[in-house]
Amino acid sequence: MPVFLNTTQPDFEAAFAALLTAKREDSPDVDDTVAAIIADVRARGDAALLDYTARFDRMEITADKIAVSRAEVDAEIAKVPEADRMALETAAERIRAYHARQLPEDQRWTDETGAELGWRWTPVSAAGLYVPGGIASYPSSVLMNAVPAKVAGVARLAITVPTPDGVMNPLVMLAARIAGVDEIYRVGGAQAIAALAYGTETIAPVDKITGPGNAYVAAAKRRVFGRVGIDMIAGPSEILVIADADNDPDWIALDLMSQAEHDESAQSILITTDAAFGRAVAEAVEARLTTLERRAVAGASWRDFGAIVVAQDLEEAAALSNRIAPEHLELCVGDPDALSEQITHAGAIFLGQWTPEAIGDYVGGPNHVLPTARSARFSSGLSVMDFVKRTTLAKMTPDALRAIGPAAETLARAESLEAHGLSVTARLEKLNR
Amino acid sequence: MPVFLNTTQPDFEAAFAALLTAKREDSPDVDDTVAAIIADVRARGDAALLDYTARFDRMEITADKIAVSRAEVDAEIAKVPEADRMALETAAERIRAYHARQLPEDQRWTDETGAELGWRWTPVSAAGLYVPGGIASYPSSVLMNAVPAKVAGVARLAITVPTPDGVMNPLVMLAARIAGVDEIYRVGGAQAIAALAYGTETIAPVDKITGPGNAYVAAAKRRVFGRVGIDMIAGPSEILVIADADNDPDWIALDLMSQAEHDESAQSILITTDAAFGRAVAEAVEARLTTLERRAVAGASWRDFGAIVVAQDLEEAAALSNRIAPEHLELCVGDPDALSEQITHAGAIFLGQWTPEAIGDYVGGPNHVLPTARSARFSSGLSVMDFVKRTTLAKMTPDALRAIGPAAETLARAESLEAHGLSVTARLEKLNR
Repeated sequence: MPVFLNTTQPDFEAAFAALLTAKREDSPDVDDTVAAIIADVRARGDAALLDYTARFDRMEITADKIAVSRAEVDAEIAKVPEADRMALETAAERIRAYHARQLPEDQRWTDETGAELGWRWTPVSAAGLYVPGGIASYPSSVLMNAVPAKVAGVARLAITVPTPDGVMNPLVMLAARIAGVDEIYRVGGAQAIAALAYGTETIAPVDKITGPGNAYVAAAKRRVFGRVGIDMIAGPSEILVIADADNDPDWIALDLMSQAEHDESAQSILITTDAAFGRAVAEAVEARLTTLERRAVAGASWRDFGAIVVAQDLEEAAALSNRIAPEHLELCVGDPDALSEQITHAGAIFLGQWTPEAIGDYVGGPNHVLPTARSARFSSGLSVMDFVKRTTLAKMTPDALRAIGPAAETLARAESLEAHGLSVTARLEKLNR
Repeated sequence: MPVFLNTTQPDFEAAFAALLTAKREDSPDVDDTVAAIIADVRARGDAALLDYTARFDRMEITADKIAVSRAEVDAEIAKVPEADRMALETAAERIRAYHARQLPEDQRWTDETGAELGWRWTPVSAAGLYVPGGIASYPSSVLMNAVPAKVAGVARLAITVPTPDGVMNPLVMLAARIAGVDEIYRVGGAQAIAALAYGTETIAPVDKITGPGNAYVAAAKRRVFGRVGIDMIAGPSEILVIADADNDPDWIALDLMSQAEHDESAQSILITTDAAFGRAVAEAVEARLTTLERRAVAGASWRDFGAIVVAQDLEEAAALSNRIAPEHLELCVGDPDALSEQITHAGAIFLGQWTPEAIGDYVGGPNHVLPTARSARFSSGLSVMDFVKRTTLAKMTPDALRAIGPAAETLARAESLEAHGLSVTARLEKLNR
């Protein structure tokens, strides 16, 4: 059973703080191993990739097989059942439509001095998307990473995906095709991240790397950050449901389990204004845990990190939620829009009882790559913005320089940066001559 | 003398590649030291801050002196000459006006299924700005970090600034006051970053840390990343000037020196379509280097990392610029707007000969915290966006869930995430009952 708290109990603050700071992930320290792999790929290129692929993916291939050919992709895609193909296409279309609205606009204006100011957005030229192999190889994640990149205008989008024992995931290949991925490489682990960052004979380097991965992949991404851009380093999944008594306990139980089934380190929390409803949800969870396919994982997550909190009212619930800064937040209350106005930190909000979080994982339209581990306090989910960058623009006229140049000269002098000031002075002297 | 290249020379490609990959910074490996400092501040709080401040800043203070009082700030500000105060206020106003245009808009719409979708932006609650001490303590940098944070709506903005031997910088205090900074602490180094990230008795923790610093500060920012958000880790400054023959060589020389004077590791490059003009600029630089106050620094930077490149035409110049992805790019040509259309990667563009880069450092309006070391390929300068985060919104109706729920069920099944699917199924069953 998970913890069952009431905000009125004397030790609530300590218990809630423990919930917030529970160390859910014990990342192995793989940094030295990863550093060696990256150095090896930089030094030996494809040859290193082939060695690691033989070792970790039990697959002896030659360099000409690092890239997955179009014909191979076609053959995999042919295996996908029609219903799955249609569902993926529905998801892709909805994700594309949502993200198309995120494209930022260029701006340019003239201020009162006559200076023209503004900025211009340009896409990242080349991006690499890491896709895990095996059980965590999710086609939906391919869409969630690749579609925003293509909406942003990334010209070259490469995927690396390990294929342990040579087994490919047909749905991953189809998702890549639907999203417009340009290149697919059958490599994984830290070696794939090194190849994307530094390039090999077969894989040209990219400018930005996104996508989930295990501890090795995460450590490699941290190491190549700076050489290339990376997205966030995601932790285990989390859901917070705020629900009043007017909900079906079984629906809420399933919503909580839909995160718990991801990972034993996932965290599912219910905050309710009704203690009896909280108990009903706890019972519904236990009932579902007798039959769920992934009951071992979901049960461990729920037992170790799950929680039911009884709050005095929705205002208190919102305040607790803001301290959690959840990745996913369901507002299953009568007026979810009003409650959402009180939410200051959350990756994604699901409004009302007809919006289970799983809709957002697949077909809602918003991205499912979201800030975990309280990082919604300072960061956002993946978006088109991760694949574009801003160049600021400034254009002075002689009049504008006359108006604001002297202030620049003064500040340059105050900061003892003489050449800065002189670059303005030389021009003003010409104007005053 | 810096390298002087012509794109037509046989070994140009190798020489240009060497320029791109020149290792300009030899960061000392201070990671172990920094890890120990952070652990100590986490364990001992203010007591650790006081010890490090005594050791590194040669200043014995008590805990009640960690915060700089309002009266102390007033006393420092009173020392600022009127001209400097006016220049800082001009800069702040222009930076504020520019950044106010960056505030992103919330969106909300209803799609064809009746689902409501959108997103909402909220500010980071608390941000910390690191300000270096000593010679690199720039009031302009205080404005460039603090003004966007306040425009974004950050409620609590704290500054940490070391005051070696107890010496404060009056202009830094004034810039903090003008920008609306809420708290100022006289601590620096890795210990200041640790205090901002984890909090001490005196300093409440923040959610995001920005600002420049030495190798210790940079290593500390990398270490606390994840616990809090950070801005980029900035490298030495860079400028690229693309100039035709129709320029005053002395102006261009001063623009090149305005970056070179920052740091011996700075890099200043001229690309010109006219070899004779390139030689004239080289001579003008030599002339200026005989008198500049910071000629030792600027001369070393120019000698070791400077370059003049003669290109065949502006198109070739733009292509070379895109490979450099410069932090600062001046386009001193007849039609700078046309040329800027060909630029795909640059932190900031300065259009035309009346726009010396130094204008952008102080009073142009755009931010002067910009991506270095070729990172303009994948990142942008500091902006209001660094102090806000997006929460995505989704609200299904029964009809919307009927329309798109089945695709989610299908994909959940394909990904073997049963509870995800069931959370949709349970709701659809109620609808179909």
